Amino acid sequence: MTSQLFYHRILLLSFLFAIACSCSQPSQEKTQQKPNIILIFADDMGYGDVGVFGHPTIKTPNLDRLAFEGQKWTNFYVAAPVCTPSRAGLMTGRLPIRSGMCSNRRRVLFPESKGGLPESEITIATALKKADYSTAIIGKWHLGHLQPFDPNSHGFDYYFGIPYSNDMDQTLPEGVAYMKACSNPKDGYFNVPLKRNRETIEQPANQNTITKRYTEEAVKYIKEHTEQPFFLYLAHSMPHVPLFPSADFKGKSLRGIYGDVIQEIDWSVGEIIDALQKNGLDDNTLVVFTSDNGPWLIFNEKGGSAGLLKGGKGGTYEGGMREPTVMWGPGLVEPGVVTDLGTTMDLLPTFCSLAGTELPSDRVIDGFDLSKTITLNEKSPRDVVFYYRGERVFAIRKGAYKAHFITQPAYTPGGPIENETPELYNLNVDPSEKYNIAEQHPDVITEIEEILYNHLQTIVPVENQLEKY
Amino acid sequence: MTSQLFYHRILLLSFLFAIACSCSQPSQEKTQQKPNIILIFADDMGYGDVGVFGHPTIKTPNLDRLAFEGQKWTNFYVAAPVCTPSRAGLMTGRLPIRSGMCSNRRRVLFPESKGGLPESEITIATALKKADYSTAIIGKWHLGHLQPFDPNSHGFDYYFGIPYSNDMDQTLPEGVAYMKACSNPKDGYFNVPLKRNRETIEQPANQNTITKRYTEEAVKYIKEHTEQPFFLYLAHSMPHVPLFPSADFKGKSLRGIYGDVIQEIDWSVGEIIDALQKNGLDDNTLVVFTSDNGPWLIFNEKGGSAGLLKGGKGGTYEGGMREPTVMWGPGLVEPGVVTDLGTTMDLLPTFCSLAGTELPSDRVIDGFDLSKTITLNEKSPRDVVFYYRGERVFAIRKGAYKAHFITQPAYTPGGPIENETPELYNLNVDPSEKYNIAEQHPDVITEIEEILYNHLQTIVPVENQLEKY
Repeated sequence: MTSQLFYHRILLLSFLFAIACSCSQPSQEKTQQKPNIILIFADDMGYGDVGVFGHPTIKTPNLDRLAFEGQKWTNFYVAAPVCTPSRAGLMTGRLPIRSGMCSNRRRVLFPESKGGLPESEITIATALKKADYSTAIIGKWHLGHLQPFDPNSHGFDYYFGIPYSNDMDQTLPEGVAYMKACSNPKDGYFNVPLKRNRETIEQPANQNTITKRYTEEAVKYIKEHTEQPFFLYLAHSMPHVPLFPSADFKGKSLRGIYGDVIQEIDWSVGEIIDALQKNGLDDNTLVVFTSDNGPWLIFNEKGGSAGLLKGGKGGTYEGGMREPTVMWGPGLVEPGVVTDLGTTMDLLPTFCSLAGTELPSDRVIDGFDLSKTITLNEKSPRDVVFYYRGERVFAIRKGAYKAHFITQPAYTPGGPIENETPELYNLNVDPSEKYNIAEQHPDVITEIEEILYNHLQTIVPVENQLEKY
Repeated sequence: MTSQLFYHRILLLSFLFAIACSCSQPSQEKTQQKPNIILIFADDMGYGDVGVFGHPTIKTPNLDRLAFEGQKWTNFYVAAPVCTPSRAGLMTGRLPIRSGMCSNRRRVLFPESKGGLPESEITIATALKKADYSTAIIGKWHLGHLQPFDPNSHGFDYYFGIPYSNDMDQTLPEGVAYMKACSNPKDGYFNVPLKRNRETIEQPANQNTITKRYTEEAVKYIKEHTEQPFFLYLAHSMPHVPLFPSADFKGKSLRGIYGDVIQEIDWSVGEIIDALQKNGLDDNTLVVFTSDNGPWLIFNEKGGSAGLLKGGKGGTYEGGMREPTVMWGPGLVEPGVVTDLGTTMDLLPTFCSLAGTELPSDRVIDGFDLSKTITLNEKSPRDVVFYYRGERVFAIRKGAYKAHFITQPAYTPGGPIENETPELYNLNVDPSEKYNIAEQHPDVITEIEEILYNHLQTIVPVENQLEKY
């Protein structure tokens, strides 16, 4: 072993020297530029589906490394526990209720929907265009597929992807039910189009190769944008069912086809980082990884895992709305585990701050600027999270405490139950929401009820977009 | 930001150069030595109680770093779901049934017990003494407190710690029940002695400072043993209830007193690594971190979390017997996430192999030599895990599959249920044991039943040690 070790050391020495040399050239020009921003967004990925967030058999070496080198956020939330409203919150920095993008009757947009994100809304892309960013979305949009609502109408220079979920436009043979089709999909069951800007270039989109093609498009985009700051929103269609890993990943994970899909997404993350490094952009790019909502548990092992969190997609227990979130950017992101609160709605203000452009001032913005938490590890300015289901606030988190005013099973029968005394949990001590401590803390409940009351005063009725069809 | 970044780079450059220089002196003498071995053992720590194993609010930067720089084992088991038999398996490399160290009637040893690990058993310490190792146990023993069974009778040159669990020798005031005393402990409730070798040096042991004192003893031991290879077994008394973080850690974690205790143990891990580095031993020491069994769930938030695993201490679902395990040793341990199977019983053969000494050949050894998995990332030789509760095999894992022949609640009323058809789970796909797939895999059940049958042929009746009192 000794001689082997000696060679290892020679190698290590050379490697360190190479790093040291490359680091010794301060690329002042580049770092004066506005940072590039890459937002990688998974679909229906659970809090527990990443190695560094606790999954025992899904191997995610790239995300693990990014979490170690950058920030691992363990209390990062989405705006809603299902797709369309969650993405509306992400794109606008506003609760979806403010843009009419949530409904008690229809959870998301469908192919027959006539609505979408109103043109009056300002998206991350629109805001960053004002700061001279080049903007692209590669992947799933799901904020309206008709022209007034599509990505090109919302600030994106370039669009390559699918307009809504990969389980839509169903063309199922007789006798094949939806659940079965999603669990054991075959080519031809789903007729989702693949678009390049406003043109449909493939229908049905070949989902067997879609993660790979998204990745190739993203890498190409990075290569072609080394001179102008860019915002790249890479919104994977999966692990939303139906699951289609590419041939290179099928059967490769221990976790079954769900694990194959996650491992392909992790590979994709690695390709993005590699492209940044090869193009000399890694020291001035912020990469954010998260997902739109928790795992779709009704699909059993074809759905993901929320780890130690309760519940999943569609519900307002933690598993539905807390996501495995990683922020990476050497020289930009202060490494560490961040237990402070953050949400996807905070990304708009954060990105605007990093890009040095102002936030829209003519509307309520629900997001907070996290840039000092990211770059300096300062305390997050966010202290409250609202858990909306449709148009109603089911729960509110204030600091460590979460009060559930309304509870409802996510996808199993049973209507909403208005809790006479809200359930109360200390999420820092009891992340699994096992020990209701409402009786011991009536004062906390009163405080959170006041937050609810004040919040509801800020809600102005708008046209519902999900109910137009 | 630019000038700040420039200074960062100068600093980084200097740092890397320093590393490169220190690495360029191949200390051939040292690496020809047998490696030192440090085994850090927690008590009742759950699979989910470490940051890198998924806990959102317990901060374990040292364990996280060790897992990233070394190996994170995600399928690592103990020999039994409670303390005494688990430790008997660890120390002997043999299932506790072979040494009489498990019982259906008394789970562990108590202060009034007259039994202990028989003198005829060979422990890790005894085996490594044969290879000229210096040996020490700092912390909890729990394999017999009478002289024939104590650490000094079992190969340890040095002992500093408590003989059994920290909740024993109860001296509770009238009206204070056991559960309450453990949940809200006060000085004087527990009269456990602190021993230095065979001398009682403090009674009751001051548990408020015990983790800190274990750590100081360990650091001192490392400093004093830079010339001879050593085996240091650091067996923390906690997070077993009652929980006593030291003043420096009390109230410091977000996770309450349980988190305070884990964060102090993580601090202790950091002190050990620091001592290795300061004494130039870090490149020839294997550090293993694991725990004796899963979290004691009946203590609610005073107990730990098994993360996404089902059950906890006392039971044979995964939460009872799978532990967060990290192996670290630069130049010795091949970094990565290891999903192969391992158990604490494998440590005796592994350590013997690394120390170049032979295994005892006059008895059944249940452990496998994992040294090539640790140093070269070769496939683990282990493919089967037995889940004993007391003297009975409740479940068996073969590869991905686990069959439960008998199930029983861990600490709640209810006797054992012999399942007519065993429950069967694919643990790689379904680590939470949610989806019983027995009906689909009768062949797998038959195969595992044969393993059980063959295994039972190897069990020879011996005197029961836990029933002697």
